Amino acid sequence: MDKNEKIELIVRKAVQIFNEDSLREKLKSDKKLVIKFGADPSRPDLHLGHTVPLRVLKLLQDMGHEIVFVIGDFTAMIGDPSGKSKTRPQLTFEETRKSGETYFKQVTKILDKDKTKITYNSEWLNKMNFKDVLELTGKYTVARILERDDFNNRFINKIPIGVHEFMYPLMQGYDSVAIHADVEMGGTDQTFNLLVGRELQKDYGQPQQDVIVFPLLVGLEGKEKMSKSLDNYIGIDEEPFVMFEKAMKIPDECLESYFQLTTDIKKEIYQKWIEDDIVNAHREFGKEIIRMYHGDDCITEAIEKYDTIAKGSIPNNIEQCVIDKSDSELSIVDLLVKTGLVASKSEGRRLIEQKGIKINGELVNDVNQKLTEKNILENKIILQKGKNKFIKVCFK
Amino acid sequence: MDKNEKIELIVRKAVQIFNEDSLREKLKSDKKLVIKFGADPSRPDLHLGHTVPLRVLKLLQDMGHEIVFVIGDFTAMIGDPSGKSKTRPQLTFEETRKSGETYFKQVTKILDKDKTKITYNSEWLNKMNFKDVLELTGKYTVARILERDDFNNRFINKIPIGVHEFMYPLMQGYDSVAIHADVEMGGTDQTFNLLVGRELQKDYGQPQQDVIVFPLLVGLEGKEKMSKSLDNYIGIDEEPFVMFEKAMKIPDECLESYFQLTTDIKKEIYQKWIEDDIVNAHREFGKEIIRMYHGDDCITEAIEKYDTIAKGSIPNNIEQCVIDKSDSELSIVDLLVKTGLVASKSEGRRLIEQKGIKINGELVNDVNQKLTEKNILENKIILQKGKNKFIKVCFK
Repeated sequence: MDKNEKIELIVRKAVQIFNEDSLREKLKSDKKLVIKFGADPSRPDLHLGHTVPLRVLKLLQDMGHEIVFVIGDFTAMIGDPSGKSKTRPQLTFEETRKSGETYFKQVTKILDKDKTKITYNSEWLNKMNFKDVLELTGKYTVARILERDDFNNRFINKIPIGVHEFMYPLMQGYDSVAIHADVEMGGTDQTFNLLVGRELQKDYGQPQQDVIVFPLLVGLEGKEKMSKSLDNYIGIDEEPFVMFEKAMKIPDECLESYFQLTTDIKKEIYQKWIEDDIVNAHREFGKEIIRMYHGDDCITEAIEKYDTIAKGSIPNNIEQCVIDKSDSELSIVDLLVKTGLVASKSEGRRLIEQKGIKINGELVNDVNQKLTEKNILENKIILQKGKNKFIKVCFK
Repeated sequence: MDKNEKIELIVRKAVQIFNEDSLREKLKSDKKLVIKFGADPSRPDLHLGHTVPLRVLKLLQDMGHEIVFVIGDFTAMIGDPSGKSKTRPQLTFEETRKSGETYFKQVTKILDKDKTKITYNSEWLNKMNFKDVLELTGKYTVARILERDDFNNRFINKIPIGVHEFMYPLMQGYDSVAIHADVEMGGTDQTFNLLVGRELQKDYGQPQQDVIVFPLLVGLEGKEKMSKSLDNYIGIDEEPFVMFEKAMKIPDECLESYFQLTTDIKKEIYQKWIEDDIVNAHREFGKEIIRMYHGDDCITEAIEKYDTIAKGSIPNNIEQCVIDKSDSELSIVDLLVKTGLVASKSEGRRLIEQKGIKINGELVNDVNQKLTEKNILENKIILQKGKNKFIKVCFK
């Protein structure tokens, strides 16, 4: 691809651009641009949803620009100052730096290490005093902050908003001022904050960043945005078999956008796959993401394991756990804990009640069930949790 | 008055108390209390309106408590961070300290110097960093700040409110935390801010201050609160004659509250005066405030001057201005400027057009009018501006 083709691809991938003319001009010039991307320090495990912008960032990087990740460690270290929210755990300095390193390690699976920079916004926000804060907050009106959808909804529905919360978009926007961003990228859910950065730069006498808003990848349940906390994600660090298995669960109507947003496969090809055979199209998608994040070599094994389980069979090469013969008197629940298949007896009992545990392919129905004499004599016991977790138990 | 009588008097003077039981308990105990009173650093000239709370503070001081004036120099030094308001001029450190000294000088006309402390809120607010600010703002919700009448009105009427403005009541409230106030006093227009202080102390783990809300003295036009900027005030530093003259202008229906709020005269006495002869009641009020702020000795002269002018006569002992004989060709307008009666020719012309200038008791009707030969020969010219500004011109 030449420069112009890359520019067209970037523009095509965006949902909205503020403003397109200016962005095109910047990208056409020979200036090395500072591309800002904000990162949440508390959830460093990247999933396919994150790869949507990362793949655009990679294009920008290939064009010679500098990618600057801004880790929002400042607020992460403060936690929730009102002390009311439990969803925002307070992180230590070390934890945020460790998250930053993990983040760097993960994004450089897609991006070039040498052209990727990680910064922490505490570097500049920690230095601000009350006067600086008043100057910053003096740039924005209450009404404009309340335009942000989530604030607006909470305000209308009388759900309390802490005064400090009004400062978060301003802080995020100020990050653009601090790093002199030329371009910022973010998901559609970040549009408001991205534009705050653009406006604050003007107020601080800087050229305004252009803003690329990219689409959000929908999660595996087909409704919400893909996120770790909703457990509807495919992590880019997950093992090939899990990736493949999750790929098969993508709702049919979402598969096209998965291809479009997360792979390089050409539109005419994936559209034909989807038209011809939707199940096979899922398999192709699964193969592609294993190829991208683990390499070609890992594809066959993952598929074989998936197919074996799908047939209800027990796969080869499953993990083995050796336990003492005296433990053969144990109940199935105790055995589940001993082998590490469950974390606690209560979890084991719950899974049995939910019909989630099998022994040698047969459902365990009684929470007090023990191994049969036959089991022990044969010394061939395979415990199964859910559809795809197996463990072989051997007595010695 | 004994302690209990003083407590009753304080309670009676208040419009509202939060909370009365707790305040009574504090005042009855032997603990030396910290009494907070907020002061605006940009307008140090005290007027009768200010004396309403000052006289209550004096009572508290006489009971052994410490009066702490908090000068809001922090925001005064910042000015308007949004750069939009011209009504909030930015003051230098020196200016705020000078205001503080003037303030101290003026309040100690009523209060005891040795039991009065002036503090500046920059002392603690300057030390706060962004984290501290978030902690402070995390204690309050947007909805609660928007309950403040003026914010509420502006919000409803879509008049912009800067985000930084939400922090002012919190800063003012934090002052109570910083000085560990036991009691705060303020006018009815400050009720919201006074209660913020009370609530923030709780959030910061301190005993809560009690709040005494006192009535606002209405200005000389009988509508708005007395204030310098509305020019409807009687300054406690104004000369006796001006005090007396302004006292005579108090609207009849407001005189009772002036007596009640600003003097020690007993209710039965001033009520009788008002019933018997309202003009004389005004004179008694004028005499009383001269007595309070200048002493008995100044009363007679002020009244005589007032009565002379009221009769349309020219008072004795007026200022004299000597000018060069060659200037006798000047127009009246030039002469007004030369003698300093007006600041500019245009003001002089305007006053003549408004029939506000007399020469030797006769109205000047023509803006181009010059001195007559008779005037110059007699060498006895008295220029009069309005009702009570006179100057004698002598040629040499």
